Amino acid sequence: MDRGKEINEGLVRDIFGRARFISDLGVVLLETSSGSCRTGLTVLPKHQQQDGYVHAGVTASIADHTSGGAAASMVPEGSTVLTVEFKINYLRPARGDRLECAARVIKPGRRLIITETEVFSMEDGRAVLTAKAMNTLAVVEKTW
Amino acid sequence: MDRGKEINEGLVRDIFGRARFISDLGVVLLETSSGSCRTGLTVLPKHQQQDGYVHAGVTASIADHTSGGAAASMVPEGSTVLTVEFKINYLRPARGDRLECAARVIKPGRRLIITETEVFSMEDGRAVLTAKAMNTLAVVEKTW
Amino acid sequence: MDRGKEINEGLVRDIFGRARFISDLGVVLLETSSGSCRTGLTVLPKHQQQDGYVHAGVTASIADHTSGGAAASMVPEGSTVLTVEFKINYLRPARGDRLECAARVIKPGRRLIITETEVFSMEDGRAVLTAKAMNTLAVVEKTW
Amino acid sequence: MDRGKEINEGLVRDIFGRARFISDLGVVLLETSSGSCRTGLTVLPKHQQQDGYVHAGVTASIADHTSGGAAASMVPEGSTVLTVEFKINYLRPARGDRLECAARVIKPGRRLIITETEVFSMEDGRAVLTAKAMNTLAVVEKTW
Repeated sequence: MDRGKEINEGLVRDIFGRARFISDLGVVLLETSSGSCRTGLTVLPKHQQQDGYVHAGVTASIADHTSGGAAASMVPEGSTVLTVEFKINYLRPARGDRLECAARVIKPGRRLIITETEVFSMEDGRAVLTAKAMNTLAVVEKTW
Repeated sequence: MDRGKEINEGLVRDIFGRARFISDLGVVLLETSSGSCRTGLTVLPKHQQQDGYVHAGVTASIADHTSGGAAASMVPEGSTVLTVEFKINYLRPARGDRLECAARVIKPGRRLIITETEVFSMEDGRAVLTAKAMNTLAVVEKTW
Repeated sequence: MDRGKEINEGLVRDIFGRARFISDLGVVLLETSSGSCRTGLTVLPKHQQQDGYVHAGVTASIADHTSGGAAASMVPEGSTVLTVEFKINYLRPARGDRLECAARVIKPGRRLIITETEVFSMEDGRAVLTAKAMNTLAVVEKTW
Repeated sequence: MDRGKEINEGLVRDIFGRARFISDLGVVLLETSSGSCRTGLTVLPKHQQQDGYVHAGVTASIADHTSGGAAASMVPEGSTVLTVEFKINYLRPARGDRLECAARVIKPGRRLIITETEVFSMEDGRAVLTAKAMNTLAVVEKTW
């Protein structure tokens, strides 16, 4: 742990451990550091939309939760984060059998945290940028 | 069927019938007409995030797919729709045991369709507006 | 003034009176009530982009400031509002010689306020919806 | 000119030369290459909002037009670009006397182009990231 940059790693792990939708979906926390988070997802038939691609909702879900992980890493003990809003652009259909997602904080704050997040489709060993999002999160009191 | 306003109801039904993520999630098509779509979802523990609320990804998924239904209702035979991008604001935590979602086309087009979508949490018989989204969809050739 | 719904009309008027960019642009406050605001703009050649339409930046500016007016109407004395972020969809080119804009608060709050805003192009006596936006605003201490 | 990466520099220059709102605002084209564009603006009192900061509409305008420049650099002769939608986050108030803006294409396409854009406030010789945007642009027939 970088002593100069504190990281609330407990909160990041809790956010992944406690969110049933995220474990049900299959999203796995890969790595976190102060202001960033990386996750992965093995694509299954249950993630598909009508054309056989990964559903936009799956991509939005991994992007939103990874963004939450990046933001959570920077909040003090006793606080947590909630998504205020996000915008996501779908750049290319995700055709691979694995998604990877990387989020980073572009503006930390005591009340609001802004992140940007990239979702990659792993295809033949290459990471293809499939979606990009910007999220605004609120820092709120943790009630658990 | 309103002869003055054609509706591609087959495509709307296919979009809901073929999307495995949407049936796995539990989203049900309630109603469609030309340029609009309504859906519902019984909230289960598997839909929760870390605080016990409905996960932002679930709300985004029902909003995106219902938006797709509204747009699909207006495209000609042989075409279908894909989400280009969307933005969603989370207005209040969804605490109820049921979500309902209503999408409508605010700008039809041959190449692009713009929708706006509201997600309601049904609480004690009242519909509480929990999220609002705007989506841009592309009209593309249907390959199935 | 509706006693049941207080309105910080002084702040709304200050926000329009003090913003030099808005008076330079030509945006005029038409009406405000608790949680809503309406403005107008006479379109001049200086507002054009390269095709002769109203520039997207002009439309975004009137939408953002009118959104600020709607939000400002609901904050207590001593506070003011700042735009955190917005998203705007351009639905049709604005061809008329006048824009009108209507914003309303869809979620009031002590810390954050969410608005939605429509911009109309007045063409042959009809109001054509030319753009729609959603804004997130922060309630902050007023320093003037 | 990089023969491997064609650039429609004429269109970029026309987009800046013909847009009266942009010259009236004071935005200057600094540099363009295939898929990117850089601009600058000397901040004047006429650009201010009510708190004395640069108005969100000014920041949105330079971001949108620079995004248009980046997209225009990649379209074929006879085509041009129009903004479909954008989302912008305001990260810090712009306090400096100069803005600089850099846009780059993150997804080229025959029908749609996606860009991301950063706006910097130049303060005491440092570039402070003040806003970040994502734009969707349509490639359309040029009528002039």
